[in-house]
Amino acid sequence: MAAQAYEQSYLYRLRHSAAHLLAQAVTELYPGAKLSIGPPVENGFYYDIDFPTPLREEDLPKIEQRMKELAKLDQRIECKPVDREEAKRLILDDTVPGMGAAVAEYKLQLLDAIPAGDQITFYDQQRTDREGKFHRFLDLCRGPHVDSTKEIKNFKLMNLAGAYWRGDVKNKQLTRIYGTAFETKEELESYLIMLEEAKKRDHRLLGRELGLFMFSPRVGTGLPLWLPKGAMLRQVMIDFLQKEQVKRGYDPVVTPQIASIKLYEKSGHIITFKEKLFPFMEDEEKETYILKPMNCPFHIEIYQSQMRSYRDLPIRYAEFGTVHRYEQSGEVTGILRARGFTQDDAHLFVRPDQLEEEFIAVVELTKRVLDKLGLHDFRARVGTKDPASDKYIGHDDNWTAATNAITGACEKMGMEYFVSPGDAAFYGPKLDLIIKDALGRDWQMGTIQVDYNLPERFELEYIGEDSKPHRPIMIHRAPFGSLERMIGLLTEQYAGAFPFWLSPVQIAILPIADRHNDRAAELASELKEMIYDTRNLRVTVDDRRETLGKKIRENQLQKVPYMLILGDRDLENGTVGVRSREEGDLGAMSLEDFIARL
Amino acid sequence: MAAQAYEQSYLYRLRHSAAHLLAQAVTELYPGAKLSIGPPVENGFYYDIDFPTPLREEDLPKIEQRMKELAKLDQRIECKPVDREEAKRLILDDTVPGMGAAVAEYKLQLLDAIPAGDQITFYDQQRTDREGKFHRFLDLCRGPHVDSTKEIKNFKLMNLAGAYWRGDVKNKQLTRIYGTAFETKEELESYLIMLEEAKKRDHRLLGRELGLFMFSPRVGTGLPLWLPKGAMLRQVMIDFLQKEQVKRGYDPVVTPQIASIKLYEKSGHIITFKEKLFPFMEDEEKETYILKPMNCPFHIEIYQSQMRSYRDLPIRYAEFGTVHRYEQSGEVTGILRARGFTQDDAHLFVRPDQLEEEFIAVVELTKRVLDKLGLHDFRARVGTKDPASDKYIGHDDNWTAATNAITGACEKMGMEYFVSPGDAAFYGPKLDLIIKDALGRDWQMGTIQVDYNLPERFELEYIGEDSKPHRPIMIHRAPFGSLERMIGLLTEQYAGAFPFWLSPVQIAILPIADRHNDRAAELASELKEMIYDTRNLRVTVDDRRETLGKKIRENQLQKVPYMLILGDRDLENGTVGVRSREEGDLGAMSLEDFIARL
Repeated sequence: MAAQAYEQSYLYRLRHSAAHLLAQAVTELYPGAKLSIGPPVENGFYYDIDFPTPLREEDLPKIEQRMKELAKLDQRIECKPVDREEAKRLILDDTVPGMGAAVAEYKLQLLDAIPAGDQITFYDQQRTDREGKFHRFLDLCRGPHVDSTKEIKNFKLMNLAGAYWRGDVKNKQLTRIYGTAFETKEELESYLIMLEEAKKRDHRLLGRELGLFMFSPRVGTGLPLWLPKGAMLRQVMIDFLQKEQVKRGYDPVVTPQIASIKLYEKSGHIITFKEKLFPFMEDEEKETYILKPMNCPFHIEIYQSQMRSYRDLPIRYAEFGTVHRYEQSGEVTGILRARGFTQDDAHLFVRPDQLEEEFIAVVELTKRVLDKLGLHDFRARVGTKDPASDKYIGHDDNWTAATNAITGACEKMGMEYFVSPGDAAFYGPKLDLIIKDALGRDWQMGTIQVDYNLPERFELEYIGEDSKPHRPIMIHRAPFGSLERMIGLLTEQYAGAFPFWLSPVQIAILPIADRHNDRAAELASELKEMIYDTRNLRVTVDDRRETLGKKIRENQLQKVPYMLILGDRDLENGTVGVRSREEGDLGAMSLEDFIARL
Repeated sequence: MAAQAYEQSYLYRLRHSAAHLLAQAVTELYPGAKLSIGPPVENGFYYDIDFPTPLREEDLPKIEQRMKELAKLDQRIECKPVDREEAKRLILDDTVPGMGAAVAEYKLQLLDAIPAGDQITFYDQQRTDREGKFHRFLDLCRGPHVDSTKEIKNFKLMNLAGAYWRGDVKNKQLTRIYGTAFETKEELESYLIMLEEAKKRDHRLLGRELGLFMFSPRVGTGLPLWLPKGAMLRQVMIDFLQKEQVKRGYDPVVTPQIASIKLYEKSGHIITFKEKLFPFMEDEEKETYILKPMNCPFHIEIYQSQMRSYRDLPIRYAEFGTVHRYEQSGEVTGILRARGFTQDDAHLFVRPDQLEEEFIAVVELTKRVLDKLGLHDFRARVGTKDPASDKYIGHDDNWTAATNAITGACEKMGMEYFVSPGDAAFYGPKLDLIIKDALGRDWQMGTIQVDYNLPERFELEYIGEDSKPHRPIMIHRAPFGSLERMIGLLTEQYAGAFPFWLSPVQIAILPIADRHNDRAAELASELKEMIYDTRNLRVTVDDRRETLGKKIRENQLQKVPYMLILGDRDLENGTVGVRSREEGDLGAMSLEDFIARL
């Protein structure tokens, strides 16, 4: 569901009310707990709470149980508009459960943050139960909510996390309780099953098991070290994309890992990208450097290093460029959200009359990439301006032209798309390809952006056919997004069983006994000489003195696409025992027949 | 000449005396100039001087002229041992030319730096000339020198540079005057001719002309941006070496650009490599990061991420790893000495009984690399301990074993070598391959180091056949040194005319008129489909509306190995006009014949 549609849905309100229900249960069970905020989020809801004593995961069932009881009471949820005076009085009113001076710290700050003149509202739910006990929950809240707690039937508390108040590490760390809620029992159950499945496919777990990558506390949070198999996987992906790009007239470039702050002052990232920058490095000569957060300004420097003519355009600079972004440590998630990662970046500098054609070519390349990776299920979203906002820069004509180029490109390609107002970047409209993975989860990948801003800021030019200077348009694109994010996604998509062409180890040769080792080594070097796609076949020999059963099991766990088993009979007959990851034992065949299968 | 031999040579003394002669001329011509230090260096000598008014390059001939006059005076150069009192008195004695309180600033500091108990010496040269003018030069100096200024005949002042007093940017910047001197006129002349030739081949000039790389003040000193052709050159070199390495059982890995300071505290680089580190980055969570100066600790982290058995060794981790080293801005030289560069790094973890065999394999790979790059003229230097120094760490047995492994490897390979005591790293002996380039200059490349230190610091282990833990030995190696340094060297070696396999553009197709453009494009895509070495052929079409003469000239300047010229006759006969970079016009031939030539 697009973000805007979700926010207007019943599900969104339901989850919001579930968050209130959670807070109500907490205030009853943990007197002294200070509430802060509790919004619905993508797959559920959370509430950030400052507990007097630490909460543990084991406490969640108890809270969930109380929520169920409170839900059944059929408390009506009512909206109460109040003025600021009254709001303050309510927050400090210790006759209301969960309110009062002792626990008001965060709510008072939230109240202060509401701009003067804005309508202030509370949501109130109350009921006396059969035993005569009075229950009430009142929260400073913009809403909206469902009508009664009775509607909150299919929910579950998921887990705990730490979260800084207002997301600022200088503030106190609160306890975030995550939960989810659905309209039907079936939806909740299938979500929970999906989560179970996702847990098994967790790329962090598989990354370790398959020897793809690792982390080390001595290196740091969000900084993956790529192990031999993962490094090979990266290389295969780079090879593939680089070849596709060179074929399409892209020029590879390589730019530094750091730059003077001057570069990012010129680009504006020093302001627009401030909170994602690593700390600056100031040297003895008073020059200040930053770790590269984006490749674009470097490619612009290259564009600008000489005069360009209309005949030179389009220029397409491509770089597998490593960038660093300072994600909060709590937000770092394996390689899906790392602090250092490598984008399959490219920037196209095009004339206005080339925009649509180049855009089509970029979409086609992106589709080719997703197709090759086996990600066939995706939707195209065109992010346009939010007409109500004034955060956008650039002339209206440019916006119209660019938006038309994007939708025109989709139409010419016969690709269905939906328009999502407000999803544009501040400097131009964009196209996102939203992938649905094997578990039905959405991933926003393959963003293509049209940019009028950076050419303006850097005063980029080319000399037109009219001998006058003109401004080019830039297209930003990265079909993988980043190697890290794409490998994370692929690992979960395939549960580690990568397609043959991607597999770090494609064939494992398993000699049954020592006397078959020589033939195994011979076979391995024969196969390693062969080219598949653009690379030599990747072959290992498992000549450990273990039982064949154990070796098969372990190579199966390593998700090696083919095992070739060598025994006495194979040596006699010149065959190999082929075992496929998907189809199991295929029996003895000649090497030629096996190769023909590939 | 090895460093130690040079320092004991007559040439070294001659250049040292030439530096004194330079200082004598300066004190006569520029009263008030404060002298600091003036040593012989690799290709000549320099003197760092604090001038009262700035010196310009145009002033050098005048100084050189005065040096010639002073040299001819046949001043005897005498060593004067003095005590500290007397030394101070001499420095402050303004009756001696160039001495006195007004100019004594640096000499007094140098005197203070001489440890108590050390012998203090001055070198003194004096003579009254035919016009009755008295000349004298006295300098606090350890020597040694030649006997008379008359011996200094074949010298030349080269250029000026800025140099901080004691190499510290916080100090005043002095003027460094560079000069050179030789024993014979012929040697001086051939050195100057070589310099002229080197200037034409200067990789910075050619790098710009050939579109290999660029620098930008907005990016920073010593941080090259690789343009499309340079990026392609890098890629071809990486492809070649990676393939050779995979064939030899190396495992590629990829490690982060930054690490927590903890990693380099553990490795010791935080102390041993201190002055080359970029400023630290301290984040909000009080974690401190540094830009990676070396890849080794990362590869060690990977080694340590699981238990290793004697059967797993040798392990060979290879990475084209970008590192950053903070060179003083005055020392940065194009891509030969950059601040950010990419090493073709690898670290081998070996058992003691594997050391010699693995060392031989590394030397063989390095020789294979140099051979492929056309660098055939090299000598092998074994850097061993300086028996007089105590800076080395590790047991004597290890040093003996490692040194024997290195010399043993050389002998088994039938490779001549010379031993250079004092050229070992503090943690182990090493082998350098010293390349002589087309201009006869020496380049120290292809260092291979044996390291007992890091395995010790990180407490690396493997489980031996005896089920007990043992310590592996590390080998560090980088056949290119770095991509930057090797491409810089190759650019100068070939004056930009790279061998065919390395050329960024291998074939340029030149249609004579517009009507030949279609065939040119067709031919280009035909050729681009073909594989040469491991890559598709790199082909451009020069279809600009320029005269054929101009197009040929420009592609010749771009040092493109082959031009294929297409005219009416070629279209009729199905031929191409082949023009080779080295052999000129080869006439019309069929495409098949041209391809056969490749």
